[in-house]
Amino acid sequence: MRKWPRKNDPESIKARQEALGLDGTVTGIDLEPFARAQEMLTGAAVIPVSVVGPLEIELGEYELREPDGAVVAAGRGRDSIFVPLAHTEGGLSASMHRGARAVAESGGFRTYVLADRITRASCFVCGSAVEAIELAAWLEDELSAMQDWIASQDDPSLSQFARLRGVKTHVVGPMCHVLWRWTTGDAVGANMMTRNSYVLNMGYVMERAPVKPERSILEANMGGDKKPSFEYFQSGHGKTVLAEATLTDEAVRRVLRTGVDDLLELAWAGTHGAVASGMQSVAFTPASAIAALFAATGQDLGMVGTSSMCHGAARRVDEGLQVSLRLPGLEVATIGGGTTLPYARRWLEVLGCAGAGKVYRFAQIVAAATLALEISASAAMATAGSAEFFRAHHERGGLR
Amino acid sequence: MRKWPRKNDPESIKARQEALGLDGTVTGIDLEPFARAQEMLTGAAVIPVSVVGPLEIELGEYELREPDGAVVAAGRGRDSIFVPLAHTEGGLSASMHRGARAVAESGGFRTYVLADRITRASCFVCGSAVEAIELAAWLEDELSAMQDWIASQDDPSLSQFARLRGVKTHVVGPMCHVLWRWTTGDAVGANMMTRNSYVLNMGYVMERAPVKPERSILEANMGGDKKPSFEYFQSGHGKTVLAEATLTDEAVRRVLRTGVDDLLELAWAGTHGAVASGMQSVAFTPASAIAALFAATGQDLGMVGTSSMCHGAARRVDEGLQVSLRLPGLEVATIGGGTTLPYARRWLEVLGCAGAGKVYRFAQIVAAATLALEISASAAMATAGSAEFFRAHHERGGLR
Amino acid sequence: MRKWPRKNDPESIKARQEALGLDGTVTGIDLEPFARAQEMLTGAAVIPVSVVGPLEIELGEYELREPDGAVVAAGRGRDSIFVPLAHTEGGLSASMHRGARAVAESGGFRTYVLADRITRASCFVCGSAVEAIELAAWLEDELSAMQDWIASQDDPSLSQFARLRGVKTHVVGPMCHVLWRWTTGDAVGANMMTRNSYVLNMGYVMERAPVKPERSILEANMGGDKKPSFEYFQSGHGKTVLAEATLTDEAVRRVLRTGVDDLLELAWAGTHGAVASGMQSVAFTPASAIAALFAATGQDLGMVGTSSMCHGAARRVDEGLQVSLRLPGLEVATIGGGTTLPYARRWLEVLGCAGAGKVYRFAQIVAAATLALEISASAAMATAGSAEFFRAHHERGGLR
Amino acid sequence: MRKWPRKNDPESIKARQEALGLDGTVTGIDLEPFARAQEMLTGAAVIPVSVVGPLEIELGEYELREPDGAVVAAGRGRDSIFVPLAHTEGGLSASMHRGARAVAESGGFRTYVLADRITRASCFVCGSAVEAIELAAWLEDELSAMQDWIASQDDPSLSQFARLRGVKTHVVGPMCHVLWRWTTGDAVGANMMTRNSYVLNMGYVMERAPVKPERSILEANMGGDKKPSFEYFQSGHGKTVLAEATLTDEAVRRVLRTGVDDLLELAWAGTHGAVASGMQSVAFTPASAIAALFAATGQDLGMVGTSSMCHGAARRVDEGLQVSLRLPGLEVATIGGGTTLPYARRWLEVLGCAGAGKVYRFAQIVAAATLALEISASAAMATAGSAEFFRAHHERGGLR
Repeated sequence: MRKWPRKNDPESIKARQEALGLDGTVTGIDLEPFARAQEMLTGAAVIPVSVVGPLEIELGEYELREPDGAVVAAGRGRDSIFVPLAHTEGGLSASMHRGARAVAESGGFRTYVLADRITRASCFVCGSAVEAIELAAWLEDELSAMQDWIASQDDPSLSQFARLRGVKTHVVGPMCHVLWRWTTGDAVGANMMTRNSYVLNMGYVMERAPVKPERSILEANMGGDKKPSFEYFQSGHGKTVLAEATLTDEAVRRVLRTGVDDLLELAWAGTHGAVASGMQSVAFTPASAIAALFAATGQDLGMVGTSSMCHGAARRVDEGLQVSLRLPGLEVATIGGGTTLPYARRWLEVLGCAGAGKVYRFAQIVAAATLALEISASAAMATAGSAEFFRAHHERGGLR
Repeated sequence: MRKWPRKNDPESIKARQEALGLDGTVTGIDLEPFARAQEMLTGAAVIPVSVVGPLEIELGEYELREPDGAVVAAGRGRDSIFVPLAHTEGGLSASMHRGARAVAESGGFRTYVLADRITRASCFVCGSAVEAIELAAWLEDELSAMQDWIASQDDPSLSQFARLRGVKTHVVGPMCHVLWRWTTGDAVGANMMTRNSYVLNMGYVMERAPVKPERSILEANMGGDKKPSFEYFQSGHGKTVLAEATLTDEAVRRVLRTGVDDLLELAWAGTHGAVASGMQSVAFTPASAIAALFAATGQDLGMVGTSSMCHGAARRVDEGLQVSLRLPGLEVATIGGGTTLPYARRWLEVLGCAGAGKVYRFAQIVAAATLALEISASAAMATAGSAEFFRAHHERGGLR
Repeated sequence: MRKWPRKNDPESIKARQEALGLDGTVTGIDLEPFARAQEMLTGAAVIPVSVVGPLEIELGEYELREPDGAVVAAGRGRDSIFVPLAHTEGGLSASMHRGARAVAESGGFRTYVLADRITRASCFVCGSAVEAIELAAWLEDELSAMQDWIASQDDPSLSQFARLRGVKTHVVGPMCHVLWRWTTGDAVGANMMTRNSYVLNMGYVMERAPVKPERSILEANMGGDKKPSFEYFQSGHGKTVLAEATLTDEAVRRVLRTGVDDLLELAWAGTHGAVASGMQSVAFTPASAIAALFAATGQDLGMVGTSSMCHGAARRVDEGLQVSLRLPGLEVATIGGGTTLPYARRWLEVLGCAGAGKVYRFAQIVAAATLALEISASAAMATAGSAEFFRAHHERGGLR
Repeated sequence: MRKWPRKNDPESIKARQEALGLDGTVTGIDLEPFARAQEMLTGAAVIPVSVVGPLEIELGEYELREPDGAVVAAGRGRDSIFVPLAHTEGGLSASMHRGARAVAESGGFRTYVLADRITRASCFVCGSAVEAIELAAWLEDELSAMQDWIASQDDPSLSQFARLRGVKTHVVGPMCHVLWRWTTGDAVGANMMTRNSYVLNMGYVMERAPVKPERSILEANMGGDKKPSFEYFQSGHGKTVLAEATLTDEAVRRVLRTGVDDLLELAWAGTHGAVASGMQSVAFTPASAIAALFAATGQDLGMVGTSSMCHGAARRVDEGLQVSLRLPGLEVATIGGGTTLPYARRWLEVLGCAGAGKVYRFAQIVAAATLALEISASAAMATAGSAEFFRAHHERGGLR
């Protein structure tokens, strides 16, 4: 082939398939509904989906407060939710199922949305530090003027759906890094806030700054775009969500086959291990749960790493073991991107999360499912440490 | 439904589908080949796959040296490779394609495998620091005895394929953290090395340690199991791979539509932004490429975050812009797990990477593809900063 | 001796000296002026002090804006300043002197104060996550009420000098971490803001919170009290200061004996080395300068590590090499603590920094001196890499 | 004055003093013994010194094993040690004293030296990644040849006292970073190992490397020279030391006026606070103790930050509360540098740590003293949280 065809019309797709000698399975799925999802479409990947549950969750209903964009609670409800998991890791589904059962017997999960922001980290390279400092001071005071300006533009590349909520600057030498913080509703909003940030940079800042910067850079890593960062581990990205459960001693013993003290000892050693390895998160396996839910529901898989940043904590309380996960950077959507495509949409429907007005619900379910897996995986680790378990599983197998 | 059915026989699958009201799309794919991949199988997720390329790569052939398990070069060759990408992010495929073209016109990618290890981070909680210190000293001297012991066992749960290559200890108070470092060939080997580590912990260490530890914990976070850590960012996990290219000024200008100086300024600001945000990686968008390749080829999507740890560097050389990415923790496989399943297998075949003896090739292709996207995404960022580009794209759209 | 005497009256001091067999040097300095500086006073330590300079600095004058406590510029001036350095590291003084000279010949240092805050990181352990979330929301809205309350108290343990400027909360499970952000004028203010935070915790929060927390913890590490943290690397502690200089090619060549390109190559490799080692700061030797200035001027030496957090950047500009350091956490004072004691006070006077109204001047001088040493140390490293330098210094010494 | 005099003869010293208008206190101390400690000597700084104790410590005796330089135990003994602290922080001495008393009543401290290494992090910039990879492979195999070569040189700038013990390479693009790991006996050895590393770089590597690097950089931050890094937090620098104690419930209650459960709750919240703030260390106030001991004994104060890196852990055991600190990077000396100067030497004598053969003893004392302060400071924090304490201290003062 002289030149790799790049369009997504049926002939181009076919040409690519033939050039690669593809037929049968990978080309057997109707690609038409996917033709606008990406360039040079050629076939399909299939990942098996399990469904586990139900997860018993007490969820919050949330609204964005205007004009500051704070997430405020509007009510709470309970629901029993079945969770689809797309993956090929033996044991994962069974383990999450077991964790969900232990929590169900202990009164259920409680989930909360703490914050909602999506951020573009631009940078203006100025002539010197003093210019960067002046620019930063100007930008911090310019928020409402910039909000008005965006609202007044008729540039079709601007999204009026993405709302600018805050500006944070950070000066390093001649660089004025800027975090543009947006809300984008039920979409992840990466594209819309990127376009808006770009127009803001070029059409507003570069035109009106007290001293014109030498250079405007749309993204310069002061945030954490698809790379875990401390900035977002703390201040959050996408949805910041917390899930909690209080496991009874009885559920720990009967369902998880271990004890509260064993789980606490594990948490202690695991937290200190994380410190010793320079691990940012404190948790065991959040990424497994998040990746499986993301793959089933059309989320951006490139955001699995950042969305899996996790700060877990556990302690004994009168009722048993209180466990919680803080997920600061859940980049999830119920509209737009992959969520609108055939399979993903259907799995979102199973969750009651398809379409507008559902993203906080979805974020909370992801957090609860992640905690379910975390609980069960922890229990497996704690159990494995006992001599009885080892003997039962290995002695007849050969160890003497 | 009284109780959620948990088996994968056709009746159970059907019962779950009916309970959830599923039919049509998500249940339309034959699940039989997937029935052993996970529990509570219920349906499928489909992700569209593009194919971009060719990537012109000079790859190394590598072997494991015995007995130390060092990766040694056995030769180098060139290949033109088409890369399948499963994702729904508009622009990603086109962008990687463009990066690959710029590199092809500049002489191609050069890729290298630096190391190969998979690690289980166990922890022995001892009675006191002195016991932990004694245990650590004993373990560090016990490597060859433990290797012999594993080889002599007939415990069927032990994998003779996973080879113990090293032991690293780290004492914190009464905790003796231990990194068991294995090679597992063309499999990721998470399960096999976990089983072996477990048998080693319980059957060897707990039985023979000079002072018996109070508790053995199979995994306690001293490594970086599905969570990015400094430990693995530096010492590596899975395959540690490096990809490099030297872009000519001509290719930068003509294909990437920017200049070497613009790209260097971007790298400078982006690196300092990463420092300021507490970002471990220095790069723009490795996770997008890695997730797309992982989803197409049946890799573990829970390992996207760790496999995307990335240290990029760029500088001007006589020939143009020398750019490279170090990927310290590529957790990839060409056998086992999801790689054996229908769709994934076929995409691995397109890459010439299906089956045994292919994992180093695959790791290098992933690295090259990641660099291709990184180059093009960087160029887009650099281009966007120019006033000309902005005017061309926005002025007629409304900005005045 | 039956019991170690703990008072600082002359008899107790003498008793301790005799019990340890001390006489001569270490007891020869009049201890009377130091008798209130610490308990169990027994003798003295002496550190030699060099004076280097002058540093030619363009400094800012700054004021705190009310009520938000932002640092605002009130004017700029130039000064020639001699800097006292207490240390015993051969070469340090000469090196800083050389750096200062190179900068003087290039037009001088430019320094800026970006922010001023001192923070106590308290934590309220609540009954559950929901209570911690409610507490956080309440605290964030309670700032002005708390400010009024403090002003209205006549508790003599409260400092009216420490002004509460901000509250930042961070919820992890049932923990509501709170950063109480204060200004304390020309004092570091650790004690006064600690006392105020304590009264706020116990007298206000524990009494009036919507749901009473289980436990109030005065300090729980969410900030960075004497331990470097990302939180303060970014948001700052004490004074956040930036120093910049633009070295001419001529000064680099003639005074520093290297070239701008060599320094840039060094900066490039050193920045990537810092990334690879998981080093938070990007710089070579800020701590040496800061420790020497701190020891001479009675600053808290336990704050050397945090005050040395440093983000340096360098790039070529038309005029030569533009270099800068951002010191986010300079914990310095010109009143209170060790600054009032005989020797320290005198060295502060040499700097024109003794007493009230001088702390921003002092912080800027520290930053300029740190940059002076950084420049010269970098040049030494760059020079050493040349074969000529090596031959000149080593060939006749024996290397063949 | 036309030109700042730079020598340390009496006339130059006097000229500087007069130029600055100095007389009386700061010039009253005989500077002659300090004349070789630094350039441009002009006066002195005095820091008051308290002495607290005794600390009851069970210490190890250690030797370096040849040829690998491992630290091996040669015996253990007990000692009662008084500790000199140079600082001006009210409460610090009393607090450490209290902590020491609580530990003495609980059976004393136990201290251990785990490792001993001082490292220079050089970097060779090569033409490309493949050259850097080849260089790394060559260097890792060249250790014994390099050891022999150093021993055979008669270059007087080489220290035969500094012994090369290991080489660790890390390739990033064309950069081959190298950690040269040395032992330097009772000296910190920064200068001697720097000189040796330099000769090795220029006289060996640049001459004999399979492909000559473009550039040799003596120090490029892959280690952690006076800046905390994860590399040294884990692998250590200077002396890696661990101190432990088991506090009885009785000592906690009677001496520390709090309870074991309160201390555990504090440790739990403080550890999670450290995670949330991106703090590397887990501890409260190690730097205060280390700075005070360093200032009294002539250690390098620029190393306070790195030497204070600290990983603390606490748990309940049958006997009470087991607490420990791991100090991975204690850069301490008993010979050379500031330790030979009048006041410092005398305080080292009080510790029984002056001169050769004493550095492991000194490092262990520093660790025990740091733990003493940590225990007492933690107790103060835990106590303060009680309503009783608050009422007792504040109610009559005005709070109503």
